[in-house]
Amino acid sequence: MAKQLRLGVGLWCVSFASDRFVGGGYRPMRSLEEQIKMVARIEGAESFDLHTSDFTGLSPREVQKMASDSGLKINAVNPNIFGDPVFKYGAFSNTDPKIRRKAIDLVKQSFDIARELKANVSSLWPGQDGFDYYFQCDYDELWDNTISSMREIVDYAPDLKICYEYKPKEPRMFSLAGTAAKALLIVNEVNRKNFGCVLDYGHALFAHENPSESLRLFDRAGKLFNVHFNDAYGNWDDDLMAGSVNIWSNLEFFWYLKQSSYDGYVTLDMFPFREEPFEACGLALRMIRSFEAIVETLDIATIRDIQKRNDAAAVMEYLRKKVLVR
Amino acid sequence: MAKQLRLGVGLWCVSFASDRFVGGGYRPMRSLEEQIKMVARIEGAESFDLHTSDFTGLSPREVQKMASDSGLKINAVNPNIFGDPVFKYGAFSNTDPKIRRKAIDLVKQSFDIARELKANVSSLWPGQDGFDYYFQCDYDELWDNTISSMREIVDYAPDLKICYEYKPKEPRMFSLAGTAAKALLIVNEVNRKNFGCVLDYGHALFAHENPSESLRLFDRAGKLFNVHFNDAYGNWDDDLMAGSVNIWSNLEFFWYLKQSSYDGYVTLDMFPFREEPFEACGLALRMIRSFEAIVETLDIATIRDIQKRNDAAAVMEYLRKKVLVR
Amino acid sequence: MAKQLRLGVGLWCVSFASDRFVGGGYRPMRSLEEQIKMVARIEGAESFDLHTSDFTGLSPREVQKMASDSGLKINAVNPNIFGDPVFKYGAFSNTDPKIRRKAIDLVKQSFDIARELKANVSSLWPGQDGFDYYFQCDYDELWDNTISSMREIVDYAPDLKICYEYKPKEPRMFSLAGTAAKALLIVNEVNRKNFGCVLDYGHALFAHENPSESLRLFDRAGKLFNVHFNDAYGNWDDDLMAGSVNIWSNLEFFWYLKQSSYDGYVTLDMFPFREEPFEACGLALRMIRSFEAIVETLDIATIRDIQKRNDAAAVMEYLRKKVLVR
Amino acid sequence: MAKQLRLGVGLWCVSFASDRFVGGGYRPMRSLEEQIKMVARIEGAESFDLHTSDFTGLSPREVQKMASDSGLKINAVNPNIFGDPVFKYGAFSNTDPKIRRKAIDLVKQSFDIARELKANVSSLWPGQDGFDYYFQCDYDELWDNTISSMREIVDYAPDLKICYEYKPKEPRMFSLAGTAAKALLIVNEVNRKNFGCVLDYGHALFAHENPSESLRLFDRAGKLFNVHFNDAYGNWDDDLMAGSVNIWSNLEFFWYLKQSSYDGYVTLDMFPFREEPFEACGLALRMIRSFEAIVETLDIATIRDIQKRNDAAAVMEYLRKKVLVR
Repeated sequence: MAKQLRLGVGLWCVSFASDRFVGGGYRPMRSLEEQIKMVARIEGAESFDLHTSDFTGLSPREVQKMASDSGLKINAVNPNIFGDPVFKYGAFSNTDPKIRRKAIDLVKQSFDIARELKANVSSLWPGQDGFDYYFQCDYDELWDNTISSMREIVDYAPDLKICYEYKPKEPRMFSLAGTAAKALLIVNEVNRKNFGCVLDYGHALFAHENPSESLRLFDRAGKLFNVHFNDAYGNWDDDLMAGSVNIWSNLEFFWYLKQSSYDGYVTLDMFPFREEPFEACGLALRMIRSFEAIVETLDIATIRDIQKRNDAAAVMEYLRKKVLVR
Repeated sequence: MAKQLRLGVGLWCVSFASDRFVGGGYRPMRSLEEQIKMVARIEGAESFDLHTSDFTGLSPREVQKMASDSGLKINAVNPNIFGDPVFKYGAFSNTDPKIRRKAIDLVKQSFDIARELKANVSSLWPGQDGFDYYFQCDYDELWDNTISSMREIVDYAPDLKICYEYKPKEPRMFSLAGTAAKALLIVNEVNRKNFGCVLDYGHALFAHENPSESLRLFDRAGKLFNVHFNDAYGNWDDDLMAGSVNIWSNLEFFWYLKQSSYDGYVTLDMFPFREEPFEACGLALRMIRSFEAIVETLDIATIRDIQKRNDAAAVMEYLRKKVLVR
Repeated sequence: MAKQLRLGVGLWCVSFASDRFVGGGYRPMRSLEEQIKMVARIEGAESFDLHTSDFTGLSPREVQKMASDSGLKINAVNPNIFGDPVFKYGAFSNTDPKIRRKAIDLVKQSFDIARELKANVSSLWPGQDGFDYYFQCDYDELWDNTISSMREIVDYAPDLKICYEYKPKEPRMFSLAGTAAKALLIVNEVNRKNFGCVLDYGHALFAHENPSESLRLFDRAGKLFNVHFNDAYGNWDDDLMAGSVNIWSNLEFFWYLKQSSYDGYVTLDMFPFREEPFEACGLALRMIRSFEAIVETLDIATIRDIQKRNDAAAVMEYLRKKVLVR
Repeated sequence: MAKQLRLGVGLWCVSFASDRFVGGGYRPMRSLEEQIKMVARIEGAESFDLHTSDFTGLSPREVQKMASDSGLKINAVNPNIFGDPVFKYGAFSNTDPKIRRKAIDLVKQSFDIARELKANVSSLWPGQDGFDYYFQCDYDELWDNTISSMREIVDYAPDLKICYEYKPKEPRMFSLAGTAAKALLIVNEVNRKNFGCVLDYGHALFAHENPSESLRLFDRAGKLFNVHFNDAYGNWDDDLMAGSVNIWSNLEFFWYLKQSSYDGYVTLDMFPFREEPFEACGLALRMIRSFEAIVETLDIATIRDIQKRNDAAAVMEYLRKKVLVR
């Protein structure tokens, strides 16, 4: 357990941030190059994730050069299959075969780019796949379209770790895959070695899951392919600074993560609307390092022994002594 | 679609009702015989479900006679694997093999009774399987214990439809199977023909699911084995009188249910703490008949056509005209 | 009770719609004139509300002319004290007196404009007043700043009905006034005749309130100054098409509204991201008319009588017969 | 700030614990004397709270003697106006004047007992005051009945600190006073010096409040009369062991509490269904002492200075260094 986790930052954390009330954004636009340079300055950041929609006028080669110049790896190269309003009724699940085709082709292009960028991972967040109203959809059709779309997609790039990301709602009222278990049902039905799940800590909280349990659900199935990190109050995808809301839950998460088979990056997925992104991400990575350091002091055998007895008071007393008493 | 659904009542709806603040109960105890007779008087009720823990001093034969005397079928005979505090840390998932054994044996006995009662269904609600605190459990152990327990259980009674019931929380903070998808993951992993899922409408709402979508998820997999009905505000397992909170959602639910392959009973699972149970259940069954009657007027082809276009305004206008305009 | 409610539309319902993932918007921009003309075409719309930030290059006189040419009244003229990132840490509660001054002056200017437009109402939604993180704020300071800001504001325009709008969260994690009761505490403390509350139906649902109860809370205090209408699932400010999720709750709301002292407009506050706004608003107003028509058939004395006995089964049976049986 | 908080235990924490599924209870009954002796053995416990319904066959004098023999103070003596099913439709708000009378008289008797026991505080939790169904209640009637009942009650005992306790739901679907602000509206309207509020940490979380903000809301109004402590996940009144879920929120809570004017007891209000109550309460009090000790290290001026700038990243970094770095 002594090895430190490898940490990364989603470029969107340091990019423009708007919402439905502040359409003009909470801060000025930054160029992709400025975003990458900012991430490079964040202590502890070794990699970044980005969406191919961020490549405004740049070639993959130019982006690759920016990354290597800044000393950063590119972890995940993600297609943006949610930001174009053509996908407003869904990308992979869309009832219109032409729009599904557009989504699939866009994903394949992003895989081509990922290869050029030497990235091994691509995360698919099908944010528009879902529904808003009762009677609006034939749920089987959404599901079947998703399965067939995903099969074509993952078979196009057996060399990449392709990850499906769940979230309960936003921007749709109901996402097609709202929970860890539903994402895993999709992944199981698609049934390909290179297709797994993203675990986003805040999405798990929003789904009223215990994130550690969802982590085990995925890892147990050999499907923990990517980890997004942030914090949240549990009633929305708050995308807050990591470590700012929860501690016990975070410690448990890293305790299980460090014992899992996962060897990829832990990547920040935050929306610091009001905070200076450099400060927010720096704090977040320091929080993770603090959690890691504390987790190192937690004796696995002791905790496992208490778990055999389900003794919550004993395990909380053990944690209290380790964390809160000095 | 013209055939009416067969309706039943869980005996617990008309039985004693206590909670943590009113331990003495909201109404006097009734004997099992009185409960059955009350259900028989509820217009529309054709069957009842019960727990074998309700058999206080009665033989299965005596219970069977009460049912037939009252003109009711017995739909589901359920083991009570949650009410004895020995199961406080779980039944099927318990870390203690002796307690798991006790739970498994209790279930097998209930299957024997079910056969004597000519019931075809047994619903397992593992209410104590789950956890309350961070670090309290080894989640893999809970899962593995559940799978192995369930395999033994379902293999004991290939002649019965055995159903697993999910719910997000209560009495545990986190149930092992909190969502439809998680129940289905368990059912898929156990992988037996006679093992499927209960869909409880209010549990789906509490899990922030659209109940119709969960219905399709189960039916699509051939695993919709039992349906519990009630109503709820969506932030707890309220177990309110059916039809008292939601209408569009209820109509959608019955619309999909009547098109599904499900041919079992729709059984009331309510806790009318303050209401006279006879009145509450009577209202609930009349609500269901009203929903059925309205559903009959909804043209499937018209709705499917709108669904192809995802046109929520059109489908809501269609529904408004059918339901709200006279 | 026979008089129909007067209905209006918030111009933002038919305007541009973006969110944090679709920054470029779900549909093309429309000019203010096009927006007003669209509202004028919606059957049943008699008025509109707007924000003074919508006046891009237009004088109040020009906007007034557009309204009168289209045959619409202007109900509420609202300052936009949330959309400029200078207010990201709050408008009226901001710890920086210069930013509070800017917010107060902006509101006063909007009151001047309201008078030019012959509007009687101005709704203040202090969306940025609140906080995101533990330890981030001195709560007393936020409260005190709000009270003093509001006093200056409402004293500037004793001729206008000035309304404070509550909502639990978004865009801040915690709004200063998240519930009806908290808004009323602020209004009570400010203690001016021309200062009251907006009741937004979906905000009440999001706060886990029964909207009818919140309506009574405000009306009983003589503080129901404005009504926003929409629908929602209750776990977010969904801003869905009115009537699309709830029916009993909507009927109860209009039943109480028509018995209340409120004589202003019921104004749509929806965000039809994916729906054609003209269709969405048209449906919403038809839904309201349907609810009104049903409410006309509900006998007040009968319901009051049942309420004396708290008989939920009886009141639901009464409603079932009125609404679901034909 | 150096003075330690005075800590107490609600006797119900160590008493019988049942819920709607385990009516027979999770552990054996203990006599009142055994409960008091158990509390006396919990390190740090200086007082207890109890309900007069616990006096099964004992005189106040006998209970007083048990307390003094055990070295404990009696903090709050509370009437039980929720456990008798006669109050199922409400106590103070009940539409039936005879039942309101019964509730009021029961409360007055409990005040008489409180005086005999030298207790200064009485907490009223009107758990049954509220409603379950749409159209079930005339909300004004509930409110008016509550105000008039409370006036009579608080005027009966000007020498006692009488406290009103809010909670969003359970056992009713909607409590009359679901939030801090609503409790304060009631207290303000009753308008008596000896009438204030209970702040229950977990109830605040369940109401989606920041408990520290609610604490300030009450203290600012001079109405923080009693503090109940526990922990919760925020979607129900979980009544978990204090300190087991939240840390930042707890620290913030004690930071504000120690700066407040509150000089009463912090009393555990937990339901350790599955935990040995002695262990659970002992852990909880140690958690509180740990939080207090950490709070002592937090420099008020530093934090206030950051709060002026709203700098969440800075305040979280300050906290990280104080709590998580060693």
